[in-house]
Amino acid sequence: MAAGGADDPIEHLIGLLSRLPGLGRRSARRAVLKMLMRPEQQMLPLAEALQKAAEAVRPCGVCGNLDARDPCSICRDPDRERELVCVVEGVADLWALERAHAHRGLYHVLGGTLSALGGTGPEDLSIQPLLARLAEGKVEEVILALPATVDGATTAHYLTDRLRPTGVRVTRLAQGVPIGGALDVLDEGTLAAALKARRSV
Amino acid sequence: MAAGGADDPIEHLIGLLSRLPGLGRRSARRAVLKMLMRPEQQMLPLAEALQKAAEAVRPCGVCGNLDARDPCSICRDPDRERELVCVVEGVADLWALERAHAHRGLYHVLGGTLSALGGTGPEDLSIQPLLARLAEGKVEEVILALPATVDGATTAHYLTDRLRPTGVRVTRLAQGVPIGGALDVLDEGTLAAALKARRSV
Ligand SMILES: [Zn+2]
Ligand SMILES: [Zn+2]
Repeated sequence: MAAGGADDPIEHLIGLLSRLPGLGRRSARRAVLKMLMRPEQQMLPLAEALQKAAEAVRPCGVCGNLDARDPCSICRDPDRERELVCVVEGVADLWALERAHAHRGLYHVLGGTLSALGGTGPEDLSIQPLLARLAEGKVEEVILALPATVDGATTAHYLTDRLRPTGVRVTRLAQGVPIGGALDVLDEGTLAAALKARRSV
Repeated sequence: MAAGGADDPIEHLIGLLSRLPGLGRRSARRAVLKMLMRPEQQMLPLAEALQKAAEAVRPCGVCGNLDARDPCSICRDPDRERELVCVVEGVADLWALERAHAHRGLYHVLGGTLSALGGTGPEDLSIQPLLARLAEGKVEEVILALPATVDGATTAHYLTDRLRPTGVRVTRLAQGVPIGGALDVLDEGTLAAALKARRSV
């Protein structure tokens, strides 16, 4: 520790851990110290889990969810309603909806929202793959579960225009999602209610 | 995620991470998601750092500090005052004192404090190794930097009695350490001041 610089394995590990969201340097230090007390029981299993996840987890080629299988567990699940596709900005929102047990259909991860300021255009999002999924003719309703922000609304409008020619019903989450709020920090009840009260656009 | 149980690599990883102090399940989930976006850049380096630390880091055979070298970097440092040994409860306190740059001598990690309730007796602590170090005759002063708790005070009294026959000067941290406070959460200024104003017991 004391004399150790960047080449010191403890300092190096604390540095990497403290970059994780939610872990400051102090927490990282405490976590490392706790793990070092039982390296075989705590540190090596975590190292293995990280390696395994890094190797096994990939974006689903159908919906964009992150999973150890491709197509992902949701896309493979025979009990999901395949006529219903919920479009989300990112995987965090997909996971939040799954935790709410609010949606029994499939998903489509856009990978972002349109943003003039951020320089994100339609070609940067997974819109063509969504249209290709709809072209297969099995999807009857697309639920736009996008953040209640300016960029989210812009993206919802844009998608509604692009989806109109497909004849698929397009709905969005009910009012109830707080303005400016990210989906993945909402409580599960709010998410479930907003999804249930969704309305046509 | 969704369908995944304990055998799902993402859920397994989130479970392990959320056991770390300072990381709840929500933070662990966000951390995993962030890492999964760039597995090669974030996840594998962390896995390697954990593995390397688990393999390389061991308690120092002299002082009990955790380090990739044995004896540790502090015990090897020719610039440290070898006449001065600071006795701490655990490695977290040693690290806290090092961050305060408050102590230019060596350390001795007891590995706990005496606790009637916790069933920790003198034989459970690194007291014999401390006496053996003192028997070499080079140490002139032992600073007891123990927590300002009942158990810390009990341990300090016990050590003072055991060390008296050696003729070594025994001091303790000055008043200034808050009652009931753990050392490793104190700010560095308080630690440095308390160490500087230490007094004989
Ligand atoms: Zn999928
Ligand atoms: Zn040492």
